Amino acid sequence: MKDFVFYNPVKVYFGKNCMKHFDKEVRKHGKKVLLVYGKGSIKKNGAYNDIMNALKKAGMDVVEFSGVQPNPVLSHTRKGIEIAKKEKVDFIIAAGGGSVIDESKAIAAGAVVDFDVWDFYTGKKVVKDALPIVTVLTLPATASEMNMGSVITDEETGLKLSTGGEALYPEASFLNPEYTMTLPKEQIVYGTVDAISHIVEPYFNHTAKYNPLSLNIADGVLKTLKETCENILISPDNYEYRAAHMWAVTVAFNGLIRTGLGKSEFPNHAIEHAISGLFPEVAHGAGLAVVMPAWMNFMKENISSLLLRFSSNLFGSVNDESAAIEVFKNWLKSIGAPVSLSEIGVDKDAIPGISEKAEEIMRLWGMNIEVYSRENIEKILENAK
Amino acid sequence: MKDFVFYNPVKVYFGKNCMKHFDKEVRKHGKKVLLVYGKGSIKKNGAYNDIMNALKKAGMDVVEFSGVQPNPVLSHTRKGIEIAKKEKVDFIIAAGGGSVIDESKAIAAGAVVDFDVWDFYTGKKVVKDALPIVTVLTLPATASEMNMGSVITDEETGLKLSTGGEALYPEASFLNPEYTMTLPKEQIVYGTVDAISHIVEPYFNHTAKYNPLSLNIADGVLKTLKETCENILISPDNYEYRAAHMWAVTVAFNGLIRTGLGKSEFPNHAIEHAISGLFPEVAHGAGLAVVMPAWMNFMKENISSLLLRFSSNLFGSVNDESAAIEVFKNWLKSIGAPVSLSEIGVDKDAIPGISEKAEEIMRLWGMNIEVYSRENIEKILENAK
Repeated sequence: MKDFVFYNPVKVYFGKNCMKHFDKEVRKHGKKVLLVYGKGSIKKNGAYNDIMNALKKAGMDVVEFSGVQPNPVLSHTRKGIEIAKKEKVDFIIAAGGGSVIDESKAIAAGAVVDFDVWDFYTGKKVVKDALPIVTVLTLPATASEMNMGSVITDEETGLKLSTGGEALYPEASFLNPEYTMTLPKEQIVYGTVDAISHIVEPYFNHTAKYNPLSLNIADGVLKTLKETCENILISPDNYEYRAAHMWAVTVAFNGLIRTGLGKSEFPNHAIEHAISGLFPEVAHGAGLAVVMPAWMNFMKENISSLLLRFSSNLFGSVNDESAAIEVFKNWLKSIGAPVSLSEIGVDKDAIPGISEKAEEIMRLWGMNIEVYSRENIEKILENAK
Repeated sequence: MKDFVFYNPVKVYFGKNCMKHFDKEVRKHGKKVLLVYGKGSIKKNGAYNDIMNALKKAGMDVVEFSGVQPNPVLSHTRKGIEIAKKEKVDFIIAAGGGSVIDESKAIAAGAVVDFDVWDFYTGKKVVKDALPIVTVLTLPATASEMNMGSVITDEETGLKLSTGGEALYPEASFLNPEYTMTLPKEQIVYGTVDAISHIVEPYFNHTAKYNPLSLNIADGVLKTLKETCENILISPDNYEYRAAHMWAVTVAFNGLIRTGLGKSEFPNHAIEHAISGLFPEVAHGAGLAVVMPAWMNFMKENISSLLLRFSSNLFGSVNDESAAIEVFKNWLKSIGAPVSLSEIGVDKDAIPGISEKAEEIMRLWGMNIEVYSRENIEKILENAK
């Protein structure tokens, strides 16, 4: 067990009736709010109406800021900060998936400083303060609703970077599984893959010599993600499956599993950020489905016992590491996730460029560049052709 | 999945170097502190020195209040409240196990009101405010360091009751496994049994029809508790086992496992509270070890599939419910826990009195008295003769 500090003050309101608490919660945070959302799916799933009704009840002054795109971009974030400053909003409501929440966090941090928000992402500045954030989750994937991370892409350079800080924990997050009932299967699959990847990184890359609790909990959350994803694909109208899936995705990356595991590198994320930074049309979860088995294949000798454990927990026992990766890859295929670069529209000629970008991200993240040299990243990506 | 609100703002500092953060943390909460502890074990395990050094560094004015006993009692709590009021302390440091933390919570709540603190426990009043509490845990068992519960016994009536409220969450808890290295084996065993019981109650008594996440996480924490307890008994000087055990005990009852499980009754606790309320020399964990198999036996037809799951997770698969209970009971014996009333010095003649008290507690807790009539509680206790 490594020493750690665990702190997660997000108040989670969960369930089909959770929005009944919404107006009481938002009143705590002020009178004027910036409501951030994407391209309008919240107007179809019911979230927008519920939010606006509650805000009306609370007598709130609402400024709307929409148009956040998947893999949220810096230019749109800067516009949001400009509006938040000009309108002097007291707090932010992020209504959507991880992209909306991440951009909202960036706006919340950027609105209280005089310098450019991108400095938080390049590591030039540290997030110390932010406007309060309340989230209404409509797409379970990133767990941004219950953690202090944010990922933004500078679309001019294709650099997709992250930042964090206690000030970026949402004050409260509302998780109503009914808002997820209309999500296309693809989104459920990518969200599941994203959640699995959040566990895969610390599971395989941790530095603790003994930590049965984290690994046992990780196994339990992984099993839940697999079971609920499969069940949703078969029975998309079943509330129970959607609900259990939604909460499992959040718990996968709320910090608990990482406690006592020590420093964990996030190589799969670094490589995927390079891919979707350069190819913004690639969904984060799709990129991760391609990268994970390729990375496992590259690392299989170093992660042998954990790989067999991971596989046996999810799929029953296998003979060796290659079989463990194969069965995982086949399962990804079975739920409709891509497992090769060509399936996500990335030509093998792009591998050197992606590797260069990935190495840049890994350096920023303080990762071991001897293991993750550009050559080795290329080898990993070659596994995904 | 049942609707729920999850909120746990306790900041946990964990590990052998965690006390380096102590003076910075306590400075946030004021200048004058009431340091609450028990009968002096913190002077042997190093905690007292570390705390006093840090408080000196922080220039803190310290009022000491010691003598908290296992199964903390109302009269001593009232004395603490009197001192806290008279000395006008800003906050409380609870240094010890669950008893010290529970009594400190009672003092924290009682110090800010004009009426008697017992009103919170009988349900006449609701805890809305309290002095800030910082804990330094030296005995992993109750998870009070990371939840908002408190249990106190009125030694005049033998009534052992609980209260709760968001104001009773510690601001911060310091978990240094090194302070647990000197604990006698008995304490580790009782702490483990207590932690298992915190999972057993929602595991078997929940009202959700589908919640694979909670049950899978519960299985993982249960496995960890079993493994680490066994390992500590074999290798008491091993830091890694102590550390993993300490954190598992806390996570077992910090609210996570109960999310989405709906209302869970706590029959084993109600019966045990009756026992140790009337027989204060019985350790809570010892009482629970006696009650749990007896309760399982009484309920086995209603909890059949969960009982087989519980058993197979911990001990491998068995043929039927009776065998599942037997293997659990045998394991409790193997770690040195009592499994009969006679082993904890409670004569069978005491059963009617315990049952009467247990029914009283169950009524206060709003439990189903048709299931837990005095006659049925007697039947459960008869199973533990």
